[in-house]
Amino acid sequence: MVRNDLLTVGSGVDLSKGSRLRVGMIAPAWLPVPPIGYGGTERVVAVLVEGLVARGHDVTLFAAAGSVTSAHLVTPLATPPPLGDPASVSDDLFHTTSAFLHAGEFDIVHDHTGMGPALGAMLTGRTPVIHTLHGPWTAFNRRFFGLVENRVHLVAISRAQQAANPHLRYAAVVHNGIDLSVHPFNPVKEDFLVFVGRISPEKRPEVAIEVARAAKLPLVMVVKRREPAEHAYWDEFVAPILGGDVVVLDEPSQAVKAAVLGRARALLFPIDWPEPFGLVMVEAMACGTPVIACPLGAVPEVVTDGVTGFLCSTPAQMVHAAEAATELRPEDCRVRVEQCFSAEAMAAAYERVYRVALDGAGSHDGGAALEGLTDDLAHRTMSVGISERAKRTEEDPRVDHRYSNPAA
Amino acid sequence: MVRNDLLTVGSGVDLSKGSRLRVGMIAPAWLPVPPIGYGGTERVVAVLVEGLVARGHDVTLFAAAGSVTSAHLVTPLATPPPLGDPASVSDDLFHTTSAFLHAGEFDIVHDHTGMGPALGAMLTGRTPVIHTLHGPWTAFNRRFFGLVENRVHLVAISRAQQAANPHLRYAAVVHNGIDLSVHPFNPVKEDFLVFVGRISPEKRPEVAIEVARAAKLPLVMVVKRREPAEHAYWDEFVAPILGGDVVVLDEPSQAVKAAVLGRARALLFPIDWPEPFGLVMVEAMACGTPVIACPLGAVPEVVTDGVTGFLCSTPAQMVHAAEAATELRPEDCRVRVEQCFSAEAMAAAYERVYRVALDGAGSHDGGAALEGLTDDLAHRTMSVGISERAKRTEEDPRVDHRYSNPAA
Repeated sequence: MVRNDLLTVGSGVDLSKGSRLRVGMIAPAWLPVPPIGYGGTERVVAVLVEGLVARGHDVTLFAAAGSVTSAHLVTPLATPPPLGDPASVSDDLFHTTSAFLHAGEFDIVHDHTGMGPALGAMLTGRTPVIHTLHGPWTAFNRRFFGLVENRVHLVAISRAQQAANPHLRYAAVVHNGIDLSVHPFNPVKEDFLVFVGRISPEKRPEVAIEVARAAKLPLVMVVKRREPAEHAYWDEFVAPILGGDVVVLDEPSQAVKAAVLGRARALLFPIDWPEPFGLVMVEAMACGTPVIACPLGAVPEVVTDGVTGFLCSTPAQMVHAAEAATELRPEDCRVRVEQCFSAEAMAAAYERVYRVALDGAGSHDGGAALEGLTDDLAHRTMSVGISERAKRTEEDPRVDHRYSNPAA
Repeated sequence: MVRNDLLTVGSGVDLSKGSRLRVGMIAPAWLPVPPIGYGGTERVVAVLVEGLVARGHDVTLFAAAGSVTSAHLVTPLATPPPLGDPASVSDDLFHTTSAFLHAGEFDIVHDHTGMGPALGAMLTGRTPVIHTLHGPWTAFNRRFFGLVENRVHLVAISRAQQAANPHLRYAAVVHNGIDLSVHPFNPVKEDFLVFVGRISPEKRPEVAIEVARAAKLPLVMVVKRREPAEHAYWDEFVAPILGGDVVVLDEPSQAVKAAVLGRARALLFPIDWPEPFGLVMVEAMACGTPVIACPLGAVPEVVTDGVTGFLCSTPAQMVHAAEAATELRPEDCRVRVEQCFSAEAMAAAYERVYRVALDGAGSHDGGAALEGLTDDLAHRTMSVGISERAKRTEEDPRVDHRYSNPAA
């Protein structure tokens, strides 16, 4: 019964290649763009907005109060809601609805919110809506995106993310990009390891401590622990094994984080879930620092095993990799990011997605027509199975990171 | 910047008075229609659907699995989410989005959900969307409905509800109606009082116990205590004062509830919030039972002081009223419901709202053009102030009954 309407061309838009597009960019309600500390989605949105403005587009950013941008800024909520508060769904609804009520003023709406795809699906035939899939797959969002796939142009952030839900209709795969200028290259490495992440079972901070200790190297932990579940995980699994060989930094500035990443011998990324992208891996590599990671989710697309890091399935392999990391060349890490994960590459890719959506072409090929937007890495099918925890994350509808943790 | 588009006429609809309308009726995700036990919104939706079908309309009901209806039934979710679970926002989004994706198949969409007004606001210029305001005003929904008032036809369920937010644009005030056939008139009263309601500070069940005890009458309590906050309130304020003079029934069937209401001398309704409507008052009156209530919210519209009950501002007044209730005539209570709060009256009133919305006429008069839809009671301005608790309910954005308690 659901209509499979074509996503049609907005009226009066000059579709010539160099035309200036009016873009309505809708960030989540919770964190400013860019974020002060933690906030992967908001960091990507910030980089994308600056990239689009640099390309001459007329961008309006709907985001949390406190955002700083070269675009026109609209902040529907005077005060952002607290992260992880169930009551903040009301604020989310207000923020996202406020933004979508302006859809008619733009050539393209690019949404990054939880409810945006539902609102965008109602606009069929008017302004095309792009939605970037920032989160992991859950039982809920598999069903939800299945509802709206023919009305909203869905963009995956990795081929692994696409492959994990292959029957959905995608407009494209566009890898996240970072601002290389705020991730200075540092070829001089020091004898310590670094962990960056939310304090959660998916990120396994306690494994990073065990690996660093077994490798006889100090560990700097750049952590986000704001929400009750994060504090609980910290208290139960991390605090008991802290020692003089571990330094903890709570959501430092981007500059401090980049400096720490640049000086470290390697980034430890001992995840236990199908990581949709893993922005910090790219940030480390930009600073010339290799990545030691479990090959789950997008990791094999981001890290070139033996060149920009090591793919390790066990803590023991990670300990050996921490030793071998000194043999990798920082230059190779930097070049990889410059080639595949720059802000410029991302902005150019999204501009092409916008123009294809406006053109009405390619929107019925499940993304195949846009394959060229992605980098040329073959998607490697990994033999490493998804762990039990990753399966549980998938099946438990309560683990809905689009709501409980908008910047997952 | 928000567009103030006119709500325009759906295409191809025969606007002649007797034409059959295709109505998409969207109930909340949580409880079946009609509900098994508790569920004010779902009970009203059930009665309205049956009334519209009886009037010859082609109604499709989107509702929780387990619903029973004469309309076409669509159940987007195989299993309804648990009441009061913050994670159920995902299910709510799926349910409501699924329903609104069918909007183009109807002449009119009539929504009763939390997110529906946002989705409906995106449909401007196509199928008109009616939304009934079932809940209390909160800081959140005052702002939220302000966003969408020009795109969705908002219907208040009492003049008091409208008066408490007078600057919003309303399509009409339509009082809730009940099925008189399942609320048999009982002129023979017994010497006990009855309380019906959620176990919450707004309903003040403990005051009902105190009043009945002071009046030396037994009390039958028909309660809903499912959610954690309700159990906590019960344990702290109700359980300690229970005695042999109190009988508790947990969400009995409609038939049992109606039988108890019909036999009681009076219904105690000692509320401490601006009740948007108060369906149980009408149910009691239909059974011939007068209502002893605090004159907050819609109470003075529903209860005629000294005729179908007594308006009391203190527990002491309620004790006296419990004595005086024997002097009221059960017939007067029944007739009042037949005249003003019947299923037929409600269905006829909503049909007129639908036709006016389709006609495009009157939709810019803030409801004034539809004044005739409401009964002819003058709206009494009560001198009894809103209590402190009522003020707190208003100002605390966490008390958002549209989400925490969809059938408030």
